[in-house]
Amino acid sequence: MKEEINARIAALRDYMRGAGVDAVIVPQTDPHQSEYLADHWQVRRWLTGFTGSAGDVVVTMDKAFVWADSRYWLQAAAQLEGTCVEVMEDGKPQTPDKIDYLCSVLPSGATVGIDGMLFSIVATQAMERALASRGIKLVVDFNPVDLIWLDRPALPKDEVFVHGVEYAGEDAASKLSKMLSNASAQGASSAFISDLAEIAWALNVRARDVECNPVVTSFLYVSPKGSVLFIDADKINAEVRDYLAAAGVDVRPYGAIAEFLGALPVDERVLLSAGQSAGALLPVLGERAVVGTSPVAMLKAVKNDVQVAGVRNAMVRDGVALVHSFMEIEDMMARGETLTEMGVADILLKYRSAQPLFFDLSFDTIAGYAAHGAIVHYSANPSTNATLRPDNLLLVDSGANYLDGTTDITRTISLGEPTDAQRHDFTLVMKGHISLAQAVFPVGTRGAQLDVLARINLWKEGLSYLHGTGHGVGHFLNVHEGPQSIRLNDTLAPMTPGMITSNEPGLYREGEYGIRCENLVLTVPAFTTDFGEFLRFETLTLFPFDLRLFDVNLMSDAEIDWVNSYHTMVCEKLLPQLDAAAQEWLISKTRPLTR
Amino acid sequence: MKEEINARIAALRDYMRGAGVDAVIVPQTDPHQSEYLADHWQVRRWLTGFTGSAGDVVVTMDKAFVWADSRYWLQAAAQLEGTCVEVMEDGKPQTPDKIDYLCSVLPSGATVGIDGMLFSIVATQAMERALASRGIKLVVDFNPVDLIWLDRPALPKDEVFVHGVEYAGEDAASKLSKMLSNASAQGASSAFISDLAEIAWALNVRARDVECNPVVTSFLYVSPKGSVLFIDADKINAEVRDYLAAAGVDVRPYGAIAEFLGALPVDERVLLSAGQSAGALLPVLGERAVVGTSPVAMLKAVKNDVQVAGVRNAMVRDGVALVHSFMEIEDMMARGETLTEMGVADILLKYRSAQPLFFDLSFDTIAGYAAHGAIVHYSANPSTNATLRPDNLLLVDSGANYLDGTTDITRTISLGEPTDAQRHDFTLVMKGHISLAQAVFPVGTRGAQLDVLARINLWKEGLSYLHGTGHGVGHFLNVHEGPQSIRLNDTLAPMTPGMITSNEPGLYREGEYGIRCENLVLTVPAFTTDFGEFLRFETLTLFPFDLRLFDVNLMSDAEIDWVNSYHTMVCEKLLPQLDAAAQEWLISKTRPLTR
Repeated sequence: MKEEINARIAALRDYMRGAGVDAVIVPQTDPHQSEYLADHWQVRRWLTGFTGSAGDVVVTMDKAFVWADSRYWLQAAAQLEGTCVEVMEDGKPQTPDKIDYLCSVLPSGATVGIDGMLFSIVATQAMERALASRGIKLVVDFNPVDLIWLDRPALPKDEVFVHGVEYAGEDAASKLSKMLSNASAQGASSAFISDLAEIAWALNVRARDVECNPVVTSFLYVSPKGSVLFIDADKINAEVRDYLAAAGVDVRPYGAIAEFLGALPVDERVLLSAGQSAGALLPVLGERAVVGTSPVAMLKAVKNDVQVAGVRNAMVRDGVALVHSFMEIEDMMARGETLTEMGVADILLKYRSAQPLFFDLSFDTIAGYAAHGAIVHYSANPSTNATLRPDNLLLVDSGANYLDGTTDITRTISLGEPTDAQRHDFTLVMKGHISLAQAVFPVGTRGAQLDVLARINLWKEGLSYLHGTGHGVGHFLNVHEGPQSIRLNDTLAPMTPGMITSNEPGLYREGEYGIRCENLVLTVPAFTTDFGEFLRFETLTLFPFDLRLFDVNLMSDAEIDWVNSYHTMVCEKLLPQLDAAAQEWLISKTRPLTR
Repeated sequence: MKEEINARIAALRDYMRGAGVDAVIVPQTDPHQSEYLADHWQVRRWLTGFTGSAGDVVVTMDKAFVWADSRYWLQAAAQLEGTCVEVMEDGKPQTPDKIDYLCSVLPSGATVGIDGMLFSIVATQAMERALASRGIKLVVDFNPVDLIWLDRPALPKDEVFVHGVEYAGEDAASKLSKMLSNASAQGASSAFISDLAEIAWALNVRARDVECNPVVTSFLYVSPKGSVLFIDADKINAEVRDYLAAAGVDVRPYGAIAEFLGALPVDERVLLSAGQSAGALLPVLGERAVVGTSPVAMLKAVKNDVQVAGVRNAMVRDGVALVHSFMEIEDMMARGETLTEMGVADILLKYRSAQPLFFDLSFDTIAGYAAHGAIVHYSANPSTNATLRPDNLLLVDSGANYLDGTTDITRTISLGEPTDAQRHDFTLVMKGHISLAQAVFPVGTRGAQLDVLARINLWKEGLSYLHGTGHGVGHFLNVHEGPQSIRLNDTLAPMTPGMITSNEPGLYREGEYGIRCENLVLTVPAFTTDFGEFLRFETLTLFPFDLRLFDVNLMSDAEIDWVNSYHTMVCEKLLPQLDAAAQEWLISKTRPLTR
């Protein structure tokens, strides 16, 4: 394998030499700027053998580096060992960014090559400027991958299906019309959409193209004169083709976009998203391009009443599956049976997949026992798969895509008798979770403004977590979506009624255990006063927190009341769906927390 | 007066006609982008008669408008009545901004004129782009003010004096050297500074050029080959000239900057601040300009040990003055003597000005009785000056510039028996104040991230305030300074040890009363843990909060403890400086708050 990696890099260098390219950047993404990739787009993985979910590669004539973030420093070093590819430990103060590195090693007059379809407009322009300041040229059409990756997997061939309006709550024609209004407000007469989740949302279509992300590999051109979906014809059966035609959407080949855009009338104004559309499309459109913001992101983030009702139902089914799963986990532990982290994931999948409207998991289940819980993006594999013992914490972050909604929940439970330190840490995390859950805020407030509510109790004791507190969640779509978020850095999108966002503070004791407490919350109106309109969060997720992990001495009465009210709601919604044994279990898990 | 205003506008239009200018924008600022202006720069006030502290004027051939924010809608309407100048109520959704307005009324091919010295580089470029998109030209050298304002006040002639290093803690040579390092890191070999407070800080000089702002009207060019202060020669006596010469600073006339910059070597790279340097300087420097950020702002914001020690001492003297002031206010009220809002300001000035090292107030005292307290930027004048009655709240926001530091404090006191509603409101505001005062946060945290701590208790009851929670404070300089702030919108500057910032949440019941509780806080290291370095705030201001206004039923034990600890510290620091009667008064005002 090591030899093969070196041969692939050598082959790439041959093509670089032939094209007069001195360095190439291969990013970990696809032409849709996706976070999760179909196999066809796993170029970085194929080229280097490094399997991390993030991390670009830079290859020069004498060096090759993967820029790996701290999650992957060890894994990348292990996987790259013996190859000519080295690790750049991204995030360390002394580690340069990719462009600074290239500026430092390439002479003026050098050429950097990229596949311009894999970088957004802003990213491309920033690279171009930074390199130009050192006299380095950027060519945006250097893409020899198909020539050297001879057994490259095909584009996803999975069949597209229609996501019924009984779940979506709004038909495609209405959505396309709203998108065109938005484009028009940005000075454009049509729009070109690259983001896979945006296209799936806009047309109410789904497929199994990417694991856990029910998206459809395609591009979408939206125009008042008729829209076009660029997609592999094999993926569209006659029924879907008719459905699209009825919505005014023509179908053309996936690879035909550049030709199509280049042939649009010279006076057309096509909206591109600066952060999502590929930099390579800008020269194709020329004067016809209007570089703005996505005409879909806010529409998609604000769920309609049908979607919200669907998510509420999905949460009940997900809660029922979780009750049965955690009962089984407890039973196995009590009986001393062998249970591993991967076994936990299997149990969750078994009960979730038995629920009506289940489609798939919304992401790979994270089941982290003891020290593994402290690895934020841990995913057990056969070589790490720990056996649970009744002496530490288990962190389970999991979720599913149901036809009527997407779930994402993290619970941290104690498998044995929790230590005082564990209860202390868990309670601090929950105080942050509760503070955010109880927040009330004026219309216009951004998630970044609320983030500190989840963190301040940890900070006061010198503790912290570095991931975001909350991400937007799609509707039977990607579990991570924008534009809103609750995090340290501002994303400017206001929390708006109808948005679904996670509330997931955590704390990670390296080598000991990890704690994360996550529910999904819906932004809803709170009240209107002389001072304006106020919003609040309504918690949607339905499953108890582990009562043994609370230290009530650290909690205010209001915080204790919140836990008890939440548990009362969980019982009200789940008990009618449970058999007697499960009812008894849930009642015991939601007994009132008292001083 | 109304006739004169109309005549001035008519004269301006004559010059516009002669220069082929169709519209002119007169901003409320000076060539230094100052917030507070010397009389020489009060062009908008002279031209329109409107005296508000903010609000630009736009004059076209047939219309003239002042863009007044909500504080000034009524005042502007009253002052402009009978003139040809109308009010644009800025902040109302239907009110266009100035440039949008001009784009809507001017034809393509029209010309807008400005004095390019009165707009920052970013502001000039933004205007230029917006107007150009409608085919409107911007000329940046239209400045007929001297020709029509025949009795225009001269530039400030006040003599410059040296702010001794025993107060400043660092000499000018050291500061200039740090500024050049910063400029060098931005790719420049020299720097041009326009901001008056930055120049005063850099050279350790002060004057009385602007009321309450001890700045020096000048520009500063800093270079390793020697620096130049551009200033009216009358302002510099021989001693100051020698002092500057010793620091490597030459003196040239205030008006000589364009000529000087234009004659610099073609290969020099001069740093300008995008937000502070005038747009007019960019074409003067041409290729020599490096547009970046201020090389002074962060250096000035982070106070050194001598400055911090000075502020601590100033806080003791300011606290002593406040004790005597509030004793006198209480005495007069108790004896039924007539006391007005302006009388309150006079009392504060009397006791502050008697303190050693007093130089001036740091801003006009705000003493707002009852409903006047709800007007955020209220300043009593003979026509509004209310007489205090023992039946409502009094809000007093005041401060002084001492040679060793600047103070800014707001206290809200009850003149009679407070109502439950007043105690409720006051306690909510204080809960926010205390939450911010007790915050602990990792290095790198920005003020905007902490802002919600001061607001969340108000928001939960549908209450809010729209001003910032905290602004940076200068050292014997402007009471408002950047770059840090604690507010709804992010300013990106991290809270850094040595920064002094206000902590001033409030609540304003229109027509009833206003509440604001303000102390200054110093950012200091808290502790270092496995999770990194953490910072906290140390409260510097020394004066009790009104005990009668607390409702302990709304407070946690920790909040009550904070008030008691704060009052204990106030006593420790102030009692040794007070006579027996004042000691007795202070002890009674700081008795423990209990349930």
